Amino acid sequence: MRDWLIHLRRGEYASLQTQIREALVSAILDRNLDQSEPIPSTRRMAKSLGVSRNTVVLAYQGLLDDGYLVARERSGYYVADKALADNAPNKRPVKPRPQQQSNVAWEKRLKHQPTALEIWVKPLDWQNLPYPFIYGQVDHNLFPLAEWRECNRQALGKKWLGAWTNDTWSADDPLLVEQIRRRILPRRGIMASDDEILVTLGAQNSLFILGELLVDGNTRVGMEEPGFPDVRHIFALHTNAITPIKVDDQGLTLSPDLDKVDLAFTTPSHQFPTTVTMPLERRMALLAKAREKDFIIIEDDYEFETNYVNEPCPALKSLDDDGRVIYVGSLSKTTFPGLRLGFMVGPKKLIAEARALRRLMVRHPPNNNQRTAALFLSLGHHDTLIRRLHKAYRERWEIMGKALDRHMPLSAHSPTFGGTAYWVRGPERIDSEVLQQEALKKGIFIEPMRLTFAAKNQPRNFFRLAFSSIADEKIEPGIKLLAETAKTLK
Amino acid sequence: MRDWLIHLRRGEYASLQTQIREALVSAILDRNLDQSEPIPSTRRMAKSLGVSRNTVVLAYQGLLDDGYLVARERSGYYVADKALADNAPNKRPVKPRPQQQSNVAWEKRLKHQPTALEIWVKPLDWQNLPYPFIYGQVDHNLFPLAEWRECNRQALGKKWLGAWTNDTWSADDPLLVEQIRRRILPRRGIMASDDEILVTLGAQNSLFILGELLVDGNTRVGMEEPGFPDVRHIFALHTNAITPIKVDDQGLTLSPDLDKVDLAFTTPSHQFPTTVTMPLERRMALLAKAREKDFIIIEDDYEFETNYVNEPCPALKSLDDDGRVIYVGSLSKTTFPGLRLGFMVGPKKLIAEARALRRLMVRHPPNNNQRTAALFLSLGHHDTLIRRLHKAYRERWEIMGKALDRHMPLSAHSPTFGGTAYWVRGPERIDSEVLQQEALKKGIFIEPMRLTFAAKNQPRNFFRLAFSSIADEKIEPGIKLLAETAKTLK
Repeated sequence: MRDWLIHLRRGEYASLQTQIREALVSAILDRNLDQSEPIPSTRRMAKSLGVSRNTVVLAYQGLLDDGYLVARERSGYYVADKALADNAPNKRPVKPRPQQQSNVAWEKRLKHQPTALEIWVKPLDWQNLPYPFIYGQVDHNLFPLAEWRECNRQALGKKWLGAWTNDTWSADDPLLVEQIRRRILPRRGIMASDDEILVTLGAQNSLFILGELLVDGNTRVGMEEPGFPDVRHIFALHTNAITPIKVDDQGLTLSPDLDKVDLAFTTPSHQFPTTVTMPLERRMALLAKAREKDFIIIEDDYEFETNYVNEPCPALKSLDDDGRVIYVGSLSKTTFPGLRLGFMVGPKKLIAEARALRRLMVRHPPNNNQRTAALFLSLGHHDTLIRRLHKAYRERWEIMGKALDRHMPLSAHSPTFGGTAYWVRGPERIDSEVLQQEALKKGIFIEPMRLTFAAKNQPRNFFRLAFSSIADEKIEPGIKLLAETAKTLK
Repeated sequence: MRDWLIHLRRGEYASLQTQIREALVSAILDRNLDQSEPIPSTRRMAKSLGVSRNTVVLAYQGLLDDGYLVARERSGYYVADKALADNAPNKRPVKPRPQQQSNVAWEKRLKHQPTALEIWVKPLDWQNLPYPFIYGQVDHNLFPLAEWRECNRQALGKKWLGAWTNDTWSADDPLLVEQIRRRILPRRGIMASDDEILVTLGAQNSLFILGELLVDGNTRVGMEEPGFPDVRHIFALHTNAITPIKVDDQGLTLSPDLDKVDLAFTTPSHQFPTTVTMPLERRMALLAKAREKDFIIIEDDYEFETNYVNEPCPALKSLDDDGRVIYVGSLSKTTFPGLRLGFMVGPKKLIAEARALRRLMVRHPPNNNQRTAALFLSLGHHDTLIRRLHKAYRERWEIMGKALDRHMPLSAHSPTFGGTAYWVRGPERIDSEVLQQEALKKGIFIEPMRLTFAAKNQPRNFFRLAFSSIADEKIEPGIKLLAETAKTLK
């Protein structure tokens, strides 16, 4: 009997039994096993892998049940013929060709080349850094893993396959829509009916759909400056007429440039990236101008849950009597980004068209994740999490504010009262991209903000320091070390 | 103490404990409970709901732990202050406004009105029909629910939150890509490297991405006629120059119209909707023409797994030495449509651009579902399922073929040897949409195929009868009843 080598990674993504099964299936389908010889006995396999015999027995039994193995009395387990039958090489000899070259001039055929867009790249291993001032990720210590896992399990309850694994393009998960309508929107002052709500694959997806629907070569778009780069990129797929509209310490300004737009994009709760909150008066003024000049507004309600001093200001949409604001919300900040769920609220006609376009684009967001999120909301876990985040973030916000005042007095940071990050303007001589590189060597991750500016001469001295994913006690030392690093730059 | 009414639906989507908790959370957040009174005791609640006291105790305990309830000694459970605190109405009085009207002329602003597209509508309750000849859905008796549930659970194992809940736009789940590359593609004769593969939200999503990237107002597209309506719709978002190319009993024909296209779309495994398979000779001829005229081909490898008589023909892409075929695959037919996962294989440059565009569109497909699918594949469950489907479908294919010959001799159906449906041409006088309505009254669901034709005078007498979701013993009686129904039509 041949010696068997399966490399088991304990504590990895799958149970030992799963890994054993995987390895065997792989070897069988790859035809790496001699069908005339038995595979190792359960006892021998268990001994050589250092696992319980029961684990191996269960794996073998599953493979027997599913036709990968056959058991021959007093001989052992063998690879089953039928496991290989459907995987037989084609009778017509086809030599698989390596697909390395292409004689097609793709550059001429591509109508867009989005790889040319400058984007932020996050290091995938940021969690191992001592000072990760990284934005928009999950804090694994705060997130209720077990509760999420339980909701995920319950989402695939007894009747799951019937009701919703069928292609349901037209209706979103009614339980999720109910939670959005009854719990989330009223806190923003928004009352909406079901046909005014569309579930999407996140805020980005909502904005892409809106870009497709509302923007073409003749559409003039007003974008916050600095603003959210990906939104600018989405609009730029359709139009060149994107006007940067300055942002001040109250958010989007009512610049004369707004007189000449068809559509304006704004993040009034916490301006992306400066984090400032648009006060009520300016919201009313913005809406009045939109009515006067007949432009529509896309409101991305960034981080409305995170206000530490004041009550959150009601959403722009809730103040909109005219039906000209489209509201974009996301579940990413209060669950986790990898889930990819968000929602759009707007006039019935627009939502109907968005739904039809979404169908062409993706059909619908996966039902199991919609249901998991719905349960997470309906069981109150989401509210509990928000309370926990709020408490944790508020403490970190205070710690970071003090640390910045103390260690980086030459830098200005926004005196805002919420959000999950500080927007920092370094001294003019600082290039924040250079600072990022140097800081990374010391285990600090910061985010340079040059790309948020559309202007030709993008300022280079702005950066963002988020506190959503860094432990309290690391903040001050991290800021201190960052300040020291900045001093060393010429 | 007030009487409590919670309506429990046994056997429904969630456990009893979950439903009790949901109802309480809802009542608390809706402020329907008087904070000065205790909620019913666990004993009383259990009695009135007819559940075990333990179930209620667990629900209450969870709510205590999460701060929704407080326990007062010798008094009972009360709604906690802090559960309501963050849900307090805004101090600034904001009357939620009903969002019913809009003063914006949306029709003028919408660049597309996809609600105007004619699409098929499936009745959501088709599973309750006795004779559901419905296409592309899951057969609940064949699908391995428990195995899928187990993979779903394992996908959220110990280390899930770290590795992949972070936004990972650039890399797809490496385990899924490995399964696609090593198991699925080689069976089609395709060898590809990781950077030639992109995971998407299904075939539809792949095609939408390709439409965005490769089609604009000047692009001439060749579409199969009859063909897949949604693909025509996707291309039509970008160009008017869509030429219908006739399909015969070998699939897409090498019509002179192909001389003048930049891009051709084809479904060679099983032509959608006629189900015919394009033989090897025509595949070679099509590739030769594409090279001669320098057009690119999008191959949607529909249902390659379902060939009952012959070996499946190798994919067009595997025969393509030129690198001008883009391959679109889907996991929907062999798992379930609601999952929304598929993949695209093409030259590196194209895939890189598609990945960048996908990022703007959706960021990435949800990681948990990618991982679940990866496990389903690596554990061999997918292979087992395909074997099971193949066996079941083959039997049904034979039964239906005989039933059609017997009961509907005046209709012609394709003599194909695979797929999951028959393409039926009824007598000229039959309008299959009328037939569908009449058949529905008798519990029969059929699919009229008028919309697959782009031609101005769409033939009305074609329909599709799928056997993927109907039990063997229902096929013959269903066909018989359908034939009788057809006779009654004028």
